[in-house]
Amino acid sequence: MGAAFVSARQGAGVSPGAVAEVFAGLRGAVPLVHCLTNVVVSQFTANMLLAAGAAPAMVHSAEEAGALARVAGGVLVNLGTVTSLTAEAMRVAVKAAAGAGRPWVLDPVGVGPLPWRTGLAHELLESAPPAVVRGNPSEILALDGGSGGRGVDSTDAPEAALAAATALARRYGCVVAVSGPVDVLTDGERVVRLANGHPLLPLVTGTGCALGALVAACAAVTDDALLAAAAATSVLNVAAEDAADGCAGPGSFAVALIDGLYALGPDRLAEAVNVR
Amino acid sequence: MGAAFVSARQGAGVSPGAVAEVFAGLRGAVPLVHCLTNVVVSQFTANMLLAAGAAPAMVHSAEEAGALARVAGGVLVNLGTVTSLTAEAMRVAVKAAAGAGRPWVLDPVGVGPLPWRTGLAHELLESAPPAVVRGNPSEILALDGGSGGRGVDSTDAPEAALAAATALARRYGCVVAVSGPVDVLTDGERVVRLANGHPLLPLVTGTGCALGALVAACAAVTDDALLAAAAATSVLNVAAEDAADGCAGPGSFAVALIDGLYALGPDRLAEAVNVR
Amino acid sequence: MGAAFVSARQGAGVSPGAVAEVFAGLRGAVPLVHCLTNVVVSQFTANMLLAAGAAPAMVHSAEEAGALARVAGGVLVNLGTVTSLTAEAMRVAVKAAAGAGRPWVLDPVGVGPLPWRTGLAHELLESAPPAVVRGNPSEILALDGGSGGRGVDSTDAPEAALAAATALARRYGCVVAVSGPVDVLTDGERVVRLANGHPLLPLVTGTGCALGALVAACAAVTDDALLAAAAATSVLNVAAEDAADGCAGPGSFAVALIDGLYALGPDRLAEAVNVR
Repeated sequence: MGAAFVSARQGAGVSPGAVAEVFAGLRGAVPLVHCLTNVVVSQFTANMLLAAGAAPAMVHSAEEAGALARVAGGVLVNLGTVTSLTAEAMRVAVKAAAGAGRPWVLDPVGVGPLPWRTGLAHELLESAPPAVVRGNPSEILALDGGSGGRGVDSTDAPEAALAAATALARRYGCVVAVSGPVDVLTDGERVVRLANGHPLLPLVTGTGCALGALVAACAAVTDDALLAAAAATSVLNVAAEDAADGCAGPGSFAVALIDGLYALGPDRLAEAVNVR
Repeated sequence: MGAAFVSARQGAGVSPGAVAEVFAGLRGAVPLVHCLTNVVVSQFTANMLLAAGAAPAMVHSAEEAGALARVAGGVLVNLGTVTSLTAEAMRVAVKAAAGAGRPWVLDPVGVGPLPWRTGLAHELLESAPPAVVRGNPSEILALDGGSGGRGVDSTDAPEAALAAATALARRYGCVVAVSGPVDVLTDGERVVRLANGHPLLPLVTGTGCALGALVAACAAVTDDALLAAAAATSVLNVAAEDAADGCAGPGSFAVALIDGLYALGPDRLAEAVNVR
Repeated sequence: MGAAFVSARQGAGVSPGAVAEVFAGLRGAVPLVHCLTNVVVSQFTANMLLAAGAAPAMVHSAEEAGALARVAGGVLVNLGTVTSLTAEAMRVAVKAAAGAGRPWVLDPVGVGPLPWRTGLAHELLESAPPAVVRGNPSEILALDGGSGGRGVDSTDAPEAALAAATALARRYGCVVAVSGPVDVLTDGERVVRLANGHPLLPLVTGTGCALGALVAACAAVTDDALLAAAAATSVLNVAAEDAADGCAGPGSFAVALIDGLYALGPDRLAEAVNVR
């Protein structure tokens, strides 16, 4: 439904210092992050959460997803390889998280060209508002009613999805984070732009999906979902900048990224965050 | 049904230059490769496709596999961890690919000792001829009616499977690629032998499965399925040769293989391909 | 039902030399290990089994799990991401393994806070006694009737789970291996403590799950399940000690661990094993 461009204040409250504080809070709290994510990225996601200081748990059954969501610090729902079986677990987890006041994060992988999951994404959004929706520009445009890209690719720039992101944020009372060379995040009023990252990131499968999990981890330690999304985005992207030196390609970069995230401290994060 | 040995011409049209041209074409086209593959290798497969220059998409649900197959450049069906749920998605994807004129590739992992998937493999082959079947010698022998090995292991040499490969290729009008120290590929008439590779390859899980995905990527950019299979085989095996130097074992080799594939250029490929 | 502390003899028969002999036997036999394990760790598990010298096979369907279990050297059942679909395959595999006299290993990931899988674990244990149950202290306490931890985390020390481990071992006639900084293993009479390992191990997802697979591999080559569990534990933990030097964090450590396991020989193992 791509609404007209919405004027917005700059991102009040999202400063390098606030981002670093959330990250320090995560390291102190070791939040349990319940990931209903895709099979391609689950190992990488778990290792990234561990390196960040969170405790990952992947439970995919409808019989159990509710019990875990109720005790988790945050819940991630990633549609990458969803099937009828795991869709049911997602429905259960979202309702349980909402009932227990736990933040949940939607990563609408592939929404747009694939009608079944597009319907599922809308159903989940209607059943309980998420804290954050994190996607690439095509997915955010599609979720707002556009035609969408061709899967996990992003064929649009984040800035082009800002109006759609703002409309979604207002409709569901959530934050929408659009990933790209410059990430654009909004809660429907405030807009934050973050310019960290590295060109090797999209060449490693699951970096965007791991970001969704990091958002859920950060949302477990702050009530400000925009700050949570900004902190997670910065953590990933600054770790990527630190990791890229001396990497021969995406294989060694994926390894160095986990090491870089593990080595990252709140002070280094505050120093390197590029908020615009 | 192991037919008698079939005399065949040398592989006309499969030269180092032609192989390099397909690889350059892949890099230019960035084909979308829809992988219905097993959960063990899906991360590695996606990273290998990205390093090669393709765009991976893994969608496992019967509700969506058709929609994606119709727009993909190529479709991979790998039976490794197939269940009744994903088998249905495979049926849908194969029919959709065939209806849309998209090449599909079968990797018959474990066919032989496991009757259920052996039946599924035959059902899929009968429903629509694949562009390429890629397997190890035991799997190819079993698919042609032999007794098969004990899973992903290959207990037979590729050359021993040539008659079975030729019979299958003629029955289904497809190419059959048999992996081993010397890979043997045939379209039922032409036979190509490729002698690149490295002994560490079978010590990394998913290298054969990633090859199936690379075959689907190459089949998206050439109509000559034998050339596509030869190009993918060479791309993997030359990258492995380039990667192996200085690796302490299969862990570092798996990382270096992704880097090596990312760094590989068509010129280096043409220079290193060992066609026999 | 946490029984009172049970006095036990020191682990007769579990010496560094015996452990090394089992590892040498594994390298010679290349046992097929059928893993019904979770999707997060299946790639890492397969690579660890290959590096150790075993042959991994992951088959998740009820249609096939029995056929593979009957011919496998050992079977691993890991509950990490179990669903109603894979639970059925686990039931079939356990019965088939028992019927064919093959050892099976239970890794009760997440048992305790998640009632559905706790019931499944008990159902499987009742259907056929396993050779070994391998878990963290919280899982072992929960399996014996305690309240359990919060998923894959271990919030109790192995020594605190010894009474529960002993009770379980006696109830099912199996070995129970409790992982931690000092691993505690018992067959209900003998107790073995192993003090190898490295603090980076719990920061890599799947190291405990890979240990379950290595236990199944060792159980394929010795009838003494306590020795099998001790050998697998030592193999993992000594490889970890060898791998940790020079690692910048958990990303590079995970890679070095596979290399270290590949490079590990029985002599080095015998020299480094720290049995208490």
